[in-house]
Amino acid sequence: MYRTNTCGELRLCDAGKQVTLAGWVQRVRKMGGMSFIDLRDRYGITQIVTENEDLNAQVSKLGREFVIQATGTVKERQSKNAKIETGEIEVELQTLNVLNPAEVPPFTIEDVSDGGEELRAKYRYLDLRRNPLKKALQLRHRMAHEIRNYLDSQNFMEIETPYLIKSTPEGARDFVVPSRMNPGQFYALPQSPQQQKQLLMVAGYDRYFQIVRCFRDEDLRADRQPEFTQVDCEMSFVERDDILETFEGLIKTLFRNVLGKEFNEPFLRMPYAEAMSKYGSDKPDIRFGMEIHELTPMVKGHDFSVFDSAEYVGAICVPGIAGYTRKQVDELTEWVKRPQIGMKGLVYIRVNADGTIKSSVDKFYSPEDLKAIADTCGAREGDMILILAAGKKKTQVALGSLRIEMGNRLGLRDPKVYAPLWVVDFPLLEWDDETSRFYAMHHPFTAPKPEQLKEFYSDRKEDLEQVNANAYDFVLNGTEVGGGSIRIHDAEIQKRMFEVLGFTPEDADYRFGFMINAFKYGAPPHGGIAFGFDRFCALFGGQETIRDYIAFPKNNQGRDVMLDAPSRIDQIQMDELCLASTVKKEE
Amino acid sequence: MYRTNTCGELRLCDAGKQVTLAGWVQRVRKMGGMSFIDLRDRYGITQIVTENEDLNAQVSKLGREFVIQATGTVKERQSKNAKIETGEIEVELQTLNVLNPAEVPPFTIEDVSDGGEELRAKYRYLDLRRNPLKKALQLRHRMAHEIRNYLDSQNFMEIETPYLIKSTPEGARDFVVPSRMNPGQFYALPQSPQQQKQLLMVAGYDRYFQIVRCFRDEDLRADRQPEFTQVDCEMSFVERDDILETFEGLIKTLFRNVLGKEFNEPFLRMPYAEAMSKYGSDKPDIRFGMEIHELTPMVKGHDFSVFDSAEYVGAICVPGIAGYTRKQVDELTEWVKRPQIGMKGLVYIRVNADGTIKSSVDKFYSPEDLKAIADTCGAREGDMILILAAGKKKTQVALGSLRIEMGNRLGLRDPKVYAPLWVVDFPLLEWDDETSRFYAMHHPFTAPKPEQLKEFYSDRKEDLEQVNANAYDFVLNGTEVGGGSIRIHDAEIQKRMFEVLGFTPEDADYRFGFMINAFKYGAPPHGGIAFGFDRFCALFGGQETIRDYIAFPKNNQGRDVMLDAPSRIDQIQMDELCLASTVKKEE
Repeated sequence: MYRTNTCGELRLCDAGKQVTLAGWVQRVRKMGGMSFIDLRDRYGITQIVTENEDLNAQVSKLGREFVIQATGTVKERQSKNAKIETGEIEVELQTLNVLNPAEVPPFTIEDVSDGGEELRAKYRYLDLRRNPLKKALQLRHRMAHEIRNYLDSQNFMEIETPYLIKSTPEGARDFVVPSRMNPGQFYALPQSPQQQKQLLMVAGYDRYFQIVRCFRDEDLRADRQPEFTQVDCEMSFVERDDILETFEGLIKTLFRNVLGKEFNEPFLRMPYAEAMSKYGSDKPDIRFGMEIHELTPMVKGHDFSVFDSAEYVGAICVPGIAGYTRKQVDELTEWVKRPQIGMKGLVYIRVNADGTIKSSVDKFYSPEDLKAIADTCGAREGDMILILAAGKKKTQVALGSLRIEMGNRLGLRDPKVYAPLWVVDFPLLEWDDETSRFYAMHHPFTAPKPEQLKEFYSDRKEDLEQVNANAYDFVLNGTEVGGGSIRIHDAEIQKRMFEVLGFTPEDADYRFGFMINAFKYGAPPHGGIAFGFDRFCALFGGQETIRDYIAFPKNNQGRDVMLDAPSRIDQIQMDELCLASTVKKEE
Repeated sequence: MYRTNTCGELRLCDAGKQVTLAGWVQRVRKMGGMSFIDLRDRYGITQIVTENEDLNAQVSKLGREFVIQATGTVKERQSKNAKIETGEIEVELQTLNVLNPAEVPPFTIEDVSDGGEELRAKYRYLDLRRNPLKKALQLRHRMAHEIRNYLDSQNFMEIETPYLIKSTPEGARDFVVPSRMNPGQFYALPQSPQQQKQLLMVAGYDRYFQIVRCFRDEDLRADRQPEFTQVDCEMSFVERDDILETFEGLIKTLFRNVLGKEFNEPFLRMPYAEAMSKYGSDKPDIRFGMEIHELTPMVKGHDFSVFDSAEYVGAICVPGIAGYTRKQVDELTEWVKRPQIGMKGLVYIRVNADGTIKSSVDKFYSPEDLKAIADTCGAREGDMILILAAGKKKTQVALGSLRIEMGNRLGLRDPKVYAPLWVVDFPLLEWDDETSRFYAMHHPFTAPKPEQLKEFYSDRKEDLEQVNANAYDFVLNGTEVGGGSIRIHDAEIQKRMFEVLGFTPEDADYRFGFMINAFKYGAPPHGGIAFGFDRFCALFGGQETIRDYIAFPKNNQGRDVMLDAPSRIDQIQMDELCLASTVKKEE
């Protein structure tokens, strides 16, 4: 061992001890005849000090990030540093040994670095030395460990499922892997171990989990990764509430053991329909109110054609912004007119501090009308009501986005405050006009609510649209962190599901034949859930972006810029795989 | 919840309780007016009984593997079954509910099934219901959990490394993944996270581990899988013995907590050279003796041309087989002449029970000569000495194989007896005549022993062949379960290593440029180890084959016969990936 202690563990009670530390030079300072080294490792920083002439000379040759070994005696510091845990001591240097010199790093290894994102990605191994990333990965390790301990204590078995599986092109694109031993054929990398975990239930494993990598070849949106990690779980002989309770237990344990936060009450359970009507989102952030109020009936018939012709009119009441200037309101109007939101305009009602009411539609509505709207929205003096109108779902979603935007602007979304929530009773199916077929809102193995089987077997699109899924999402602070469902365990219902999704029996058989087959041999009632682990960790760390919580992430083009991957491969490899590239060569 | 209890938990103290169980029908028996159901789940089997006429009628309709829910009262059994943990009680049936019927399974779900391997692979989800597989996966879960707990307690962080990396075609073939977003370019699936874990050491993470999937596109030998699981570990600021001690601690903890076996003494450490000369193997099974004895000097000069012309003559003394018939000896001779062993013949010396000595080379050697050989080999009355002669390494390896074969035949390799061992001081390099270059015996990042740097920088092949690696294997019962090394942390030595391996600087830079670069910015001394987790579990389970310890394994052609993967993919997928197949189509 190159050290007797880490750079994070020495305390005043160690004074007098002879120790050897090893680590990286964070910085070197000279004061008069004395040299100070801040020596860093994963565990902390310890100050090394010397006033010896020879040693001073050696220290003066050290650069930032040199790896050194320092032997000396622990002693109490003159000027203590309360900011670090080793701040009461320093080590008086006796011998110094350079284990490895270092070139000057291309950016500073500090909590806030001077390096740009691109540069830090290329030198990820240096960026990972910075405290925020170290803390992020430590949190991730702790989360995974706590999850495993909890699930093990609940009789869950972690079972590894294969990464080389069969391509089933439903939903997102698969990454595929050409098979050399089976020329012309491909494995797929799993988008999730959905089928395998259900087969494990058929196999009687009762309670399964896995912290597992998943792969999705999507055009990358911001903060999406082509490979991501899922906490994947499945249980047999359970109904929905058994699953919600089990995993509420897990989440509460994580809050308690990782963040020291207690949640004594059950998490709120909100139907999808309520989430949409109140928050304009299937993943509402309930850390703040500002709920949506429907105004459709009360605003119609006042000759204001925008409202009269709209399917739906709704509002949010934003507290304390009645004083917004005209310019600020115009800017908000532009904000809702952006293509991502897609509204034609914004109507406002100011409830001024003096109780007077002023709106952009004064000529259509009397002060009493406006007062009635303000009351409906629960507006108080100093608030402003923001009203949107168009198709129902579109307007609700737009109001939901506006609500989140205003929450951000008003500082109502404190990342250290946590508001967990179950969203339940999702629609089972989503109609796609383009392909003129239904898609499974969750996935094709999600069970319909048992009381809606009649509609599920109906041939009418309207009936099918009404069927709810026995599905649920776990939402934290406006982010969907987990989702799952009770599965179909009945072969007949599964067959019907494939039919509703427009698969011919041959198609269904080709894609899921072994599943349909498996269900004939005694499938238990079962259900499960999967959590997006990267995002779960980021939220627990109080961050919006997942990239710091992944040791070696890809950039927005799906590239690992440190490795410079993907890359071309040798022709010999292509030949062995019986593949030819159809990319035109640039010469 | 569909049950109040599992099928494994009811005991005599539960008598009188009303319970609901759910599970699979293992079997149904009728005796007079009574019906018995053996109801099975992951946790055990519980007997359900009824003499009610209606219920009898319902029970008579149940088939094997039906999924049922049974409610009734726990009562003491008349005739107890000591073989199962619930054997003192039974449940008197009150209501029976068929949750899912089952077709007759294609093979019996018993400890020893009547189904062939192929059939059971196709219906893996049914095979997994059998006890031996259930126990295997439970053991695997327990092993993983114990490993994580131990390493966490030793300050190791589990850090996930990417599965989509860069192809570095050194060693085995990579599986590759075409990138749609970067046409013509490929990711590779990792053969191990070797580079990433070393970069994590450069990044200062100090102690890393991961239970991680690895991929190797090899022509599959028996009991190899294209994807396999590794317990991958790395530590900083350590020397070899620190690593051996840390992981000896892990292994002893596993023996203690998983198998209830205590190992109080340090594991034996054996140099590679000794392993080869004594056991003819770099992974000796030391559960039994039968060591190899070199006879070269003592057998030369007796006009026996086979020995006179041989580079090496060696023997093992097999206890108690002096009575082997001529036919048995002939069969052994054929065994060593098989191409896998490649010997030209076998010489024997019988030390008969009466003390007389008889050999197949009596005409060249006097009784005194033979007695001297027998003494050298430590032979006692009733033993037979088996002698092979040819080139040194080839003969040692052949004797090693013969030793294992005789150990098997004589029942000396009890799978419940464990003999752990570290093999150390491997050669650094292996010369390959065909390509006329050195290959890294371990991998290109393995450090040479520090005292042999002079030879390492020599241009003479002979010097380089003598350099030992600072590497070690963990061997259990003749199987290499783990291997690792102290890594090169010095950029100059790494450069030299690439040079020795015949990489041009450009080549090395293209393949490992980021590694060479990373080492310039302060790489700590570090080393690590990786364990083959599938095999580790199989050995702990007392099995030779890993397939039962993997939930969904591939067959010898790399196929998942349950999923029917790999398979062809749509032309549209091929087009999106800018790929064309060069396989000739069979029409």
